[in-house]
Amino acid sequence: MDKRAEFQSFDTASRPDQGTPRVAALRDCFPKLGVDGVLVPRADAHQGEYVAPCDARLLWLSGFSGSAGFCAVLKDQVGIFIDGRYRLQVRDEVDLDIFTPVDWPKTKLETWLPTALPKGGVIGFDPWLHTMAEIDRLAEAVAGHQITLRPLAENPIDALWSDRPPPHDGKASAYPLRYAGSSAVEKCSEVGLDLAAQGVSAAVLSLPDSICWLLNIRGADLPHLPVVQAFAILSSTGSITVFADPAKFVDVALPDQVTLYPLDRFEERLRQEANSGPIRLDPKTAPHKLRMILAEAGAEIDEGPEPCTLPKARKHPAEIDATRAAHLRDGAAMVRFLHWFDHRAPQGGLTEIECVCALERFRRETGALQDISFDTIAGAGAHGAIVHYRVSEATNAPLAPNTLFLIDSGGQYLDGTTDITRTLPVGDVGLEEKQAFTQVLRGMIALSRARFPKGLAGRDLDALARAPLWAAGRDYDHGTGHGVGVYLSVHEAPQRISRASDVPLEVGMILSNEPGFYKEGAYGIRIENLIVVQEAAPIAGGDARTMLEFETLTLAPIDRRLVVSHDMAAADIAWLNEYHARVAKALMPLVPPEAQAWLRQATAPIA
Amino acid sequence: MDKRAEFQSFDTASRPDQGTPRVAALRDCFPKLGVDGVLVPRADAHQGEYVAPCDARLLWLSGFSGSAGFCAVLKDQVGIFIDGRYRLQVRDEVDLDIFTPVDWPKTKLETWLPTALPKGGVIGFDPWLHTMAEIDRLAEAVAGHQITLRPLAENPIDALWSDRPPPHDGKASAYPLRYAGSSAVEKCSEVGLDLAAQGVSAAVLSLPDSICWLLNIRGADLPHLPVVQAFAILSSTGSITVFADPAKFVDVALPDQVTLYPLDRFEERLRQEANSGPIRLDPKTAPHKLRMILAEAGAEIDEGPEPCTLPKARKHPAEIDATRAAHLRDGAAMVRFLHWFDHRAPQGGLTEIECVCALERFRRETGALQDISFDTIAGAGAHGAIVHYRVSEATNAPLAPNTLFLIDSGGQYLDGTTDITRTLPVGDVGLEEKQAFTQVLRGMIALSRARFPKGLAGRDLDALARAPLWAAGRDYDHGTGHGVGVYLSVHEAPQRISRASDVPLEVGMILSNEPGFYKEGAYGIRIENLIVVQEAAPIAGGDARTMLEFETLTLAPIDRRLVVSHDMAAADIAWLNEYHARVAKALMPLVPPEAQAWLRQATAPIA
Repeated sequence: MDKRAEFQSFDTASRPDQGTPRVAALRDCFPKLGVDGVLVPRADAHQGEYVAPCDARLLWLSGFSGSAGFCAVLKDQVGIFIDGRYRLQVRDEVDLDIFTPVDWPKTKLETWLPTALPKGGVIGFDPWLHTMAEIDRLAEAVAGHQITLRPLAENPIDALWSDRPPPHDGKASAYPLRYAGSSAVEKCSEVGLDLAAQGVSAAVLSLPDSICWLLNIRGADLPHLPVVQAFAILSSTGSITVFADPAKFVDVALPDQVTLYPLDRFEERLRQEANSGPIRLDPKTAPHKLRMILAEAGAEIDEGPEPCTLPKARKHPAEIDATRAAHLRDGAAMVRFLHWFDHRAPQGGLTEIECVCALERFRRETGALQDISFDTIAGAGAHGAIVHYRVSEATNAPLAPNTLFLIDSGGQYLDGTTDITRTLPVGDVGLEEKQAFTQVLRGMIALSRARFPKGLAGRDLDALARAPLWAAGRDYDHGTGHGVGVYLSVHEAPQRISRASDVPLEVGMILSNEPGFYKEGAYGIRIENLIVVQEAAPIAGGDARTMLEFETLTLAPIDRRLVVSHDMAAADIAWLNEYHARVAKALMPLVPPEAQAWLRQATAPIA
Repeated sequence: MDKRAEFQSFDTASRPDQGTPRVAALRDCFPKLGVDGVLVPRADAHQGEYVAPCDARLLWLSGFSGSAGFCAVLKDQVGIFIDGRYRLQVRDEVDLDIFTPVDWPKTKLETWLPTALPKGGVIGFDPWLHTMAEIDRLAEAVAGHQITLRPLAENPIDALWSDRPPPHDGKASAYPLRYAGSSAVEKCSEVGLDLAAQGVSAAVLSLPDSICWLLNIRGADLPHLPVVQAFAILSSTGSITVFADPAKFVDVALPDQVTLYPLDRFEERLRQEANSGPIRLDPKTAPHKLRMILAEAGAEIDEGPEPCTLPKARKHPAEIDATRAAHLRDGAAMVRFLHWFDHRAPQGGLTEIECVCALERFRRETGALQDISFDTIAGAGAHGAIVHYRVSEATNAPLAPNTLFLIDSGGQYLDGTTDITRTLPVGDVGLEEKQAFTQVLRGMIALSRARFPKGLAGRDLDALARAPLWAAGRDYDHGTGHGVGVYLSVHEAPQRISRASDVPLEVGMILSNEPGFYKEGAYGIRIENLIVVQEAAPIAGGDARTMLEFETLTLAPIDRRLVVSHDMAAADIAWLNEYHARVAKALMPLVPPEAQAWLRQATAPIA
């Protein structure tokens, strides 16, 4: 079996042995900087899920490779703040003689700092790497303890990092109008009008996926996320100035409304913008540095939501059509994988990494895969209960007979981004696992079938996906669904199915629907389809009110062998049978003959 | 048939013909007051659901008898602001030549005033009758229009109202410890400690039900709500000063920690309190006048939540036990009513008022009824679709054959407050009505059966009660449940099952569970039980997390003839059958022999 993957690595990039000399070198800079400590976040200036190698400062300093966290490097100690997902991993990746793991967000930086730093202490931070909201919250909290936050003119790590990789130089490409549905000029003008209506003269954009969506471009600066790392100033007139390396744009013809400048002109242009009227910054995502520059230049700052986030989330019908095509292709690859798995797994000796590689291979063989949308989560047995498990050579486990295997993966195709989780039996499993699977499935179906009045937020629907688990005294400690982009981020704001989300669901929003159940040390179950919000057709006898519903985009069998049908309501069984009939009809022509028989039985109706 | 009721009247108190002279007299005061208009709210200083006759200023001025609304009396027009419930009623009750109904809250006072009043205009208001939050919001909104709000030293209506009824002089009575569970001294000390922990030295209380709960007293100042109208200052030490007519307290022995003053000493004592430390006022409920007095006296005002509201909502086990007894008694009265109804209604000619009177009579015949908890809503046919319908001699309708009848009522007993809605067929009704009834019932059962993790708010559960209606393209435009007190308010804050409620549900909170469906001009369906939050017993195989559930308190048959059983899941039928078995077992010994046979068939299991 092929044990290679093009888009996923199974190495651990960590260099714990470098922690001591690097922290020492960083501390040597403190006197010159006039600080008693510095913050080293994992984030770059764009606050995204992925950072380029040249921006992986936290990894360089500490060896910690997780996707969230930060260090507070003081003279006599270094706190490394990591959440529950990384509590074990951090201990393998950093030198515990100098790094002290802190249980975050339970212990917040603002509560930890006053205990670790004497009164009068000064903490330096790179104002490009922290949002306005982060700094506001922190500054307010430590002010009472006479701790000062000092923005640094240069990031001290960049000066120490001798073998720092070169900046990302991925080429931008035009995103076809047939997928986007709306031109860059139309989008800029529409978002600009919206800003004008709010009395704002321009907005500073720092989110790469917003800029790519707005300009109908994609990029290659990051793994798994096809964006150009850039900043932009969008005027309420609809003209836009983009700041990025012009060399990245050689293959793209930008419309007249777009002016391109190298990144080193950004600050100067921002200052020039200062007197044009109120300038929108989103405190939740904009670097603190932007506010410093604008405030210094005397600008009127309008704090408010990032203006592209919502329009981007409301997908154009052409984007949804494109995404449907991506799901057809991805579904066919999934069927090939599931067929292969059913043949291979019962033979024994199959490992998590082999499954990841096989699935990636089936996706690559579509000829359309640009990247995977995130590192595949492939958890055998107890690994399935680790919600964000990422297999490495060190953890790679064989799939034992009569256990569950959880695989959560996705593809980046030009026409769409997919994200699918299936939980599979290796041979047969016990009734307990099947009952739990059925509870999870019932929640997934309840949300899939939901019809609800316009105006509701994810919070208002979250209970539907959980109620069957609640009835069994169970729950899961993650959201039910996240937003998904179109050949953009697989974790897209602001739409969510979550108790934390007050954002009303709107037609065209794509979300995941992924309830789960995790028994620590034993097994994990998650079933995930992507869904898109649509207006529901009126029903005879219904009220005269607009109702919304979800169309399921993901097409792949849900394992029938794990369904305890007498635990399901007739309407839920009917939904599953109809879904499987749809899957069979759509995918049968797209899979090779040897997989067709498998697909037929995998989608046969349940009585 | 008895057409009398002791606790409910069917008259309309409205005097539309008095509007013209009274508005003219009020306007004559404008020059002396130095205003261009005055606000006349329906509320009294305690912001409750009911006002005493002496406080019914809006009714006196306008003739409008609804339970919410206000007038803005200007020199050249009078806007009467009423919500959707009262849009028709207001037209019958006020003189439309001088009063202009305003569609509130769609049109807010703050948007209406600038269109109705010239710049520089001055609006007078009685600062006892408006909350701090109301005045803050209004003042902020009109400031830009150069409109000034002027607090008046005296309410001008009180001077004009020659035949004003005397102040409420209901006697207070001690509330037995066996029902309350906790003594006044314990409660005052506990709430005081909580204030101290928040750095507050005292709280001003203006909610009568808070004061009555805290002191274990009840009163007789208002219809349907057994409270003493009073103010109080609770010190963080647990001592409390109460301001009310001492004559009301002749029958009550107050503990040493309680000092009683007549109401006219309130302002003076408030001023004396000003230097004792931060004083808590709840902007959502406290009269603006309290802040004026305290601010003038130099007090440090701590704006925050009313300190009794949450402790009162978390019922003591003794309160829940007491309430269970009240529901047994009330359930037996309901069974007598339902039995009578089933015999009487098919004969024809029965009216809404006769039903109200009969039900009140059965409740009175328990010998324990202190009052009804609100005016019974008794809607025949299309009247059932008017959510807050209150029958009067003018609207009283006969119950036509083959229609639905909705009856929403409750009793005030010393040991508890009940609230129950049943929807009943007069003879047989069509399949449409039965299917809608079954959808409502399924939602009611889904919430009744819900088990959910601790920490969730009403908002997180609201969807469970609506999903079956949503699936049919339907919904209802009211909350699913409100809080309920123990021989106190039938509409108690802060707990709610509603998209508007972020308050986490806690053990001991009593709520209603009352989904509905209303087809305008045709019929209304609502099914309501009271429920109390309890900790759920662990389930084998469940997570190690605290789960909560609801115990159903209300005991009365739900009409089996309206249930389309093949639209129900087996688990829902099982819940209904178990509920009916429990109802039969509990009530059989409490109803007369002639009702027992009826109860047996009304609670027989559904197949």
